[in-house]
Amino acid sequence: MGFNIEQSFRKNLPAPTAAPFVKYPKYNFVGGHIDGGSIPVTELIDAATATLQADGRNLATYGLLSGPQGHRPLREFIANDLKTRAGMTDSADNILLTSGSLQALDLVNTLLLEPGDVVITEEATYGGAIARLRNSGVTCRGVSMDQDGIDMDHLEALLAEQHAAGKPAKYIYSIPTVQNPTGSVMSLERRRQLLAVAEAHDCLIFEDDCYADLLWGEPRPPTIRSLDETRKKTGSNAGRVIYCGSFSKSIAPALRVGYLVADWPVIAQILPLKTDAGSGALEQLVLAKFCEQHFNGHIDELTQSLHGKCETIIAALEEHFGATAEFDPPKGGIFIWITLPPDVDTTKLAAVAQKHEIAINPGADWTVDGPSNRHRMRLCFGHPDPDTIREGVAKLAQLCHQEFGIPKQSGNVAL
Amino acid sequence: MGFNIEQSFRKNLPAPTAAPFVKYPKYNFVGGHIDGGSIPVTELIDAATATLQADGRNLATYGLLSGPQGHRPLREFIANDLKTRAGMTDSADNILLTSGSLQALDLVNTLLLEPGDVVITEEATYGGAIARLRNSGVTCRGVSMDQDGIDMDHLEALLAEQHAAGKPAKYIYSIPTVQNPTGSVMSLERRRQLLAVAEAHDCLIFEDDCYADLLWGEPRPPTIRSLDETRKKTGSNAGRVIYCGSFSKSIAPALRVGYLVADWPVIAQILPLKTDAGSGALEQLVLAKFCEQHFNGHIDELTQSLHGKCETIIAALEEHFGATAEFDPPKGGIFIWITLPPDVDTTKLAAVAQKHEIAINPGADWTVDGPSNRHRMRLCFGHPDPDTIREGVAKLAQLCHQEFGIPKQSGNVAL
Repeated sequence: MGFNIEQSFRKNLPAPTAAPFVKYPKYNFVGGHIDGGSIPVTELIDAATATLQADGRNLATYGLLSGPQGHRPLREFIANDLKTRAGMTDSADNILLTSGSLQALDLVNTLLLEPGDVVITEEATYGGAIARLRNSGVTCRGVSMDQDGIDMDHLEALLAEQHAAGKPAKYIYSIPTVQNPTGSVMSLERRRQLLAVAEAHDCLIFEDDCYADLLWGEPRPPTIRSLDETRKKTGSNAGRVIYCGSFSKSIAPALRVGYLVADWPVIAQILPLKTDAGSGALEQLVLAKFCEQHFNGHIDELTQSLHGKCETIIAALEEHFGATAEFDPPKGGIFIWITLPPDVDTTKLAAVAQKHEIAINPGADWTVDGPSNRHRMRLCFGHPDPDTIREGVAKLAQLCHQEFGIPKQSGNVAL
Repeated sequence: MGFNIEQSFRKNLPAPTAAPFVKYPKYNFVGGHIDGGSIPVTELIDAATATLQADGRNLATYGLLSGPQGHRPLREFIANDLKTRAGMTDSADNILLTSGSLQALDLVNTLLLEPGDVVITEEATYGGAIARLRNSGVTCRGVSMDQDGIDMDHLEALLAEQHAAGKPAKYIYSIPTVQNPTGSVMSLERRRQLLAVAEAHDCLIFEDDCYADLLWGEPRPPTIRSLDETRKKTGSNAGRVIYCGSFSKSIAPALRVGYLVADWPVIAQILPLKTDAGSGALEQLVLAKFCEQHFNGHIDELTQSLHGKCETIIAALEEHFGATAEFDPPKGGIFIWITLPPDVDTTKLAAVAQKHEIAINPGADWTVDGPSNRHRMRLCFGHPDPDTIREGVAKLAQLCHQEFGIPKQSGNVAL
């Protein structure tokens, strides 16, 4: 006899959350978390104090005094940083601060896509991007990659197929620098080729550069957006690359501050779609003040620490999985992409591991062609400390051995 | 010959933003801004320092350690506060922290509505709510109000009409306490009647209580959600009222922290629609720490200051508009709803005023039947200081006189 509110819900909703959150698993190899020890707490306190003293009164106004694109000093910091590090020439007016890069993804999708549209993504890519597209009734097509980035012949073929089918791809989604999940970096030559192919097919590129600050061992390459010759030749409002970045990985994920960089016609049309009256201003104020003094030094330290943890997980994988776990060492970032023998099903492994407080990303969730990638998995090493990484990988190898007989040797860890 | 990115945009987008934001007008009588002087800067600095020292490391994890519903201590503060002040019995598990109440509105609309649906709102209501519904292809129907709230006979008639048309209203949207824009408060009796009518027609209620903390001169009434007898009788998951609140008005609008309160089946289905990996955690941390010690005292001071500014704008309206401006004194909040003689067109007045650095909300934007309300306007007095309020109202009266010959006497202010 009770009122059933669920009858009022609209149709075609994603599955509801099963129960309120309790806690993260001990061996947390999923998500974009980083290490608690790498949060620059003292500097953030100093930045909060200084910025609230100077500008705290401005919290009385939506968007502080900077309007809906977000705190101008932070936009100016981003513009300068991207100029210095990544060859970009955009001013603060081409930058929109967002609630993490995820809001940036949602806004770009809302701007461009309708159900039935087609988007080309790297074959293995951010699971959240695939889920967003599919939830909106958009078809993803996966393009092959090697260690230098997208396979251009395959891309050409896909674009031509879509053109022939009367359904040209709406955009090419790429994570060129520290690709998620492969940890690879697209070469400069491929970046130029990608732009040429996109131009030939009159297609947009959405460049997701959320991990680019976390590159180690090699300098950060210029962004695809910065190499867009169309834009240089025909005017600053004629670019074909929409760019997004984030402070989630470089400072802290729980600070929800990301940004879009695009020509003004794009920003102008996205602003009315951003219906939240601006993203959180306190986080923007604190970041602007913090970054002014500490960004470069902080990134250097963080990257060093992540590189060390990457070496830890590689050593643990070699010890406990041996030759059964194949991977290319990531060039930066917080994750490693592992191929196991075809008999292993990581979707099943994840379900078993969960009962032992181990969380992993099954390959099927992180690829366009899920069924062909059930023997792959993504492990994030950003959050757990080195001991937890070692323990977690050892336990995971044992569970994998129990379930699939792989690896044959499950290491020396007692159950 | 340049690439035209606009060809790739989807159809039926809202109008783009004309140009990057420059600055707010001097006489800013629009928006939910409050007074810079009322931002508790010192206490916010203390709260930021204390909370970052204690929990700053947790920023390394999405959602801190509280998961996607947001920082648990803040949810617990809200649950307690709503219990004490407003008769609610919801636990922290029934609360979802959002990026302002605007994200709460968007999430509820995404949960419930499809194009072609019908929603009943108070005849004069928050312009952003009307715009959201219309942008989604939803029809708004306006229900009449008096100083005690919604006219129940009219509501019954509208619900019956929609039922007869085979298109039952999806929900009733109400701002019962310090109604926007009228500043009225729905009486306890009407709240009970509203629930009875909604029950008789098996309709949901969406209670937007963003201004309820800013009531002066009378105690805050119990929320409609707290009076829902269906929920009490048939189980705690069978409520028909979805509730939202915000800290934008009570602490600071640029802190984007609002919240939804609803039964778990609603929260469970909204969580996967909130695709931003949580709202900003630093703002939640700081608010939780601040509110613990200072919320009640701060609200008392803020309300007193707003009441004073309300008296200032009423005096200025009486001085400069005389009997041509009719209004009921608001019972709290930051705005006053003014009826001018039928010859005045406030949409035109707003356009003229803008050139003189005066911003107002025309009645046509704040009502369901815009054309019948072109002689009304909303003035927000939260942001400008008393002198600016007096000057701005005087100038507005002069401009109104110049354009429409109303008021006959335009005050003693020299042009």
